[in-house]
Amino acid sequence: MSTFYMPTKVFDEENAVKNHAGDLKAFGKKALIVSGRHSAMANGSYEDICQALDEAGVDHVLFNEIEENPSVETIMKARDFGISEQVDFVIGVGGGSPMDASKAIALMIEKKDKGAEYLYDPDGDSKTLPVVAVPTTCGTGSEVTGVAVLTIKEKQTKKSMNHKVFPDLALIDGKYLKTASRQVINNTAFDALAHMYESYLNATASGYSRMCVDAGLKMWKKSIDVIRGSKEPDDADRRNMMCASMMAGMAIAHTATTLPHGLSYSVTTKLQVPHGKAVCYFMAGYLAEAKAEDRDYLLTTAGFESLEDFSKVYREACGSIDAGEEELKAVLEGAVEELAGNPKKLALTPFDTDKETLSRIAFYEATH
Amino acid sequence: MSTFYMPTKVFDEENAVKNHAGDLKAFGKKALIVSGRHSAMANGSYEDICQALDEAGVDHVLFNEIEENPSVETIMKARDFGISEQVDFVIGVGGGSPMDASKAIALMIEKKDKGAEYLYDPDGDSKTLPVVAVPTTCGTGSEVTGVAVLTIKEKQTKKSMNHKVFPDLALIDGKYLKTASRQVINNTAFDALAHMYESYLNATASGYSRMCVDAGLKMWKKSIDVIRGSKEPDDADRRNMMCASMMAGMAIAHTATTLPHGLSYSVTTKLQVPHGKAVCYFMAGYLAEAKAEDRDYLLTTAGFESLEDFSKVYREACGSIDAGEEELKAVLEGAVEELAGNPKKLALTPFDTDKETLSRIAFYEATH
Repeated sequence: MSTFYMPTKVFDEENAVKNHAGDLKAFGKKALIVSGRHSAMANGSYEDICQALDEAGVDHVLFNEIEENPSVETIMKARDFGISEQVDFVIGVGGGSPMDASKAIALMIEKKDKGAEYLYDPDGDSKTLPVVAVPTTCGTGSEVTGVAVLTIKEKQTKKSMNHKVFPDLALIDGKYLKTASRQVINNTAFDALAHMYESYLNATASGYSRMCVDAGLKMWKKSIDVIRGSKEPDDADRRNMMCASMMAGMAIAHTATTLPHGLSYSVTTKLQVPHGKAVCYFMAGYLAEAKAEDRDYLLTTAGFESLEDFSKVYREACGSIDAGEEELKAVLEGAVEELAGNPKKLALTPFDTDKETLSRIAFYEATH
Repeated sequence: MSTFYMPTKVFDEENAVKNHAGDLKAFGKKALIVSGRHSAMANGSYEDICQALDEAGVDHVLFNEIEENPSVETIMKARDFGISEQVDFVIGVGGGSPMDASKAIALMIEKKDKGAEYLYDPDGDSKTLPVVAVPTTCGTGSEVTGVAVLTIKEKQTKKSMNHKVFPDLALIDGKYLKTASRQVINNTAFDALAHMYESYLNATASGYSRMCVDAGLKMWKKSIDVIRGSKEPDDADRRNMMCASMMAGMAIAHTATTLPHGLSYSVTTKLQVPHGKAVCYFMAGYLAEAKAEDRDYLLTTAGFESLEDFSKVYREACGSIDAGEEELKAVLEGAVEELAGNPKKLALTPFDTDKETLSRIAFYEATH
């Protein structure tokens, strides 16, 4: 069985936001712009969006309180704001956090009379206000997926909401990476790579999802020298990295993430490790369990010479995890425990996932 | 500038129609099934659709008068029938003709008060009834494109309507190829190949369209022995060929066809040559004009050793055109004239398209 479904209209071009002011106007008379506190202002994306909306005669209000790993509480606060402002559509701008948040907010504005529990209602319909996504990092791919991962504070974990909400429109412009720190570029580029690796090494992989992986890996490889630290990113690199991230998003939209993402959530919430870095902490271990043929394809297509080369590049690009040995051990053991109790995630892995295997993957970096 | 947009939800699987009865129900209470006179009955697709609809409690009526290269008159007849039957959605089943027709019919049922000229109105909106596509050949890719090519009788030519109507749902099952003649399989498989070659050798080709081409060519190659006539198609071949055709459709949806399709329309309407055969009559000539690097990639990825090998396989699979030398010459000259006056099509070609070049392509088969 193979499925292809990615209904978002994507424009990947210089000045994408400015060029598509008319498309924004088609979504309504008033937009809720959803962002984090700073980066959308620093990288020029917020200004571009405001200009495009002003030019198109569309009103707009800003909710800029989305934190990294957005919480259900923040979603509900933004939804109340959106309802009171009577907005017609939602524009998420930034990394994965504001884009994911914009989907959840657009859903909850539509479901005015529902409480936060609707986000995790498996039966409710997923109709939302229209969503526009403007990515400013090169990792999440959220602009072309239906997924929104939210933090559930009381459980100290992250979980995808139970609704698929694809953006109606994604406006992609490499220039928003210009002000991103090297750390953000590296962490998010490794997140994109993880989407491709986990989509490929996935029980639900198909010719369609692997088509996206293959194209994305080749695009990712074009800027491997930036990741290796031997080159400063130029405009072409920024375009390549944004595009690779988007293709990785298309891939993961068809399969969902698997073990490395599953293991990463505790590391991120308990040790405040950035998402891409936390996910790829488990990637060498995941690749080590895969068939040699698949591993070799995934490594060489992305520009790595070997599994050791991958680990070396990852460590240099993302750095080590800042935690005491015992603290890290406890978190990793906890992550294995949690994942062992998530049969849905385990079922997506194309090889045996007994606890021993999970531990081998979790502790691979610490023991190699 | 790169765009990706293919909003159709695709299920490519055994018993796709049966498995997705519930999805059909979501489109309404009564369906208009649109087909040709015979094949949907012979290959079992019509029966499957009726069973699925019955099971889902959805009423249905049949319009089975779609001819090869459907005319605007037929569209309007079916639209009147659909309005009188108060249908909620349209299911196109068969090859490109009924699927293309279903998009135009769904549009014109929605635009109850408009005449046939609305099909070619560049300004009108493209809102339609929901469309479901069930392909039973392996060439058109119409199930994943917004295109509907219609025959305009008084002008003795074919032209795409001025609206993009993507099916909401495509249900793809290789088994419907089982009763197709070898001729239909060969002609339609060469149509799919033409979509990939013309999408790749296209001024608007992007990383996204070429991603689809690459995956589609590799899928097409898997069953090259069937095309070469050295193997009877089995279930896996039928799945491969349907899937390659779909990927080719995704590719062409992003670029539109170019010279070989443009030259083929007169050949089809004036000499009654099947579509895929007519298009690929010009393909060796088109490839001959391309950059050597591109030509080699396109030929070897699909499983051909050389341009000569391509021509040989094409001629054996599709046969020669049944027309006198003078008659053929006149049609080819007419096709060149017509295309030379179509700057929009010419602009899609990535190399010079003076009349000499067009003639070289048009007469390549006749002179090699």
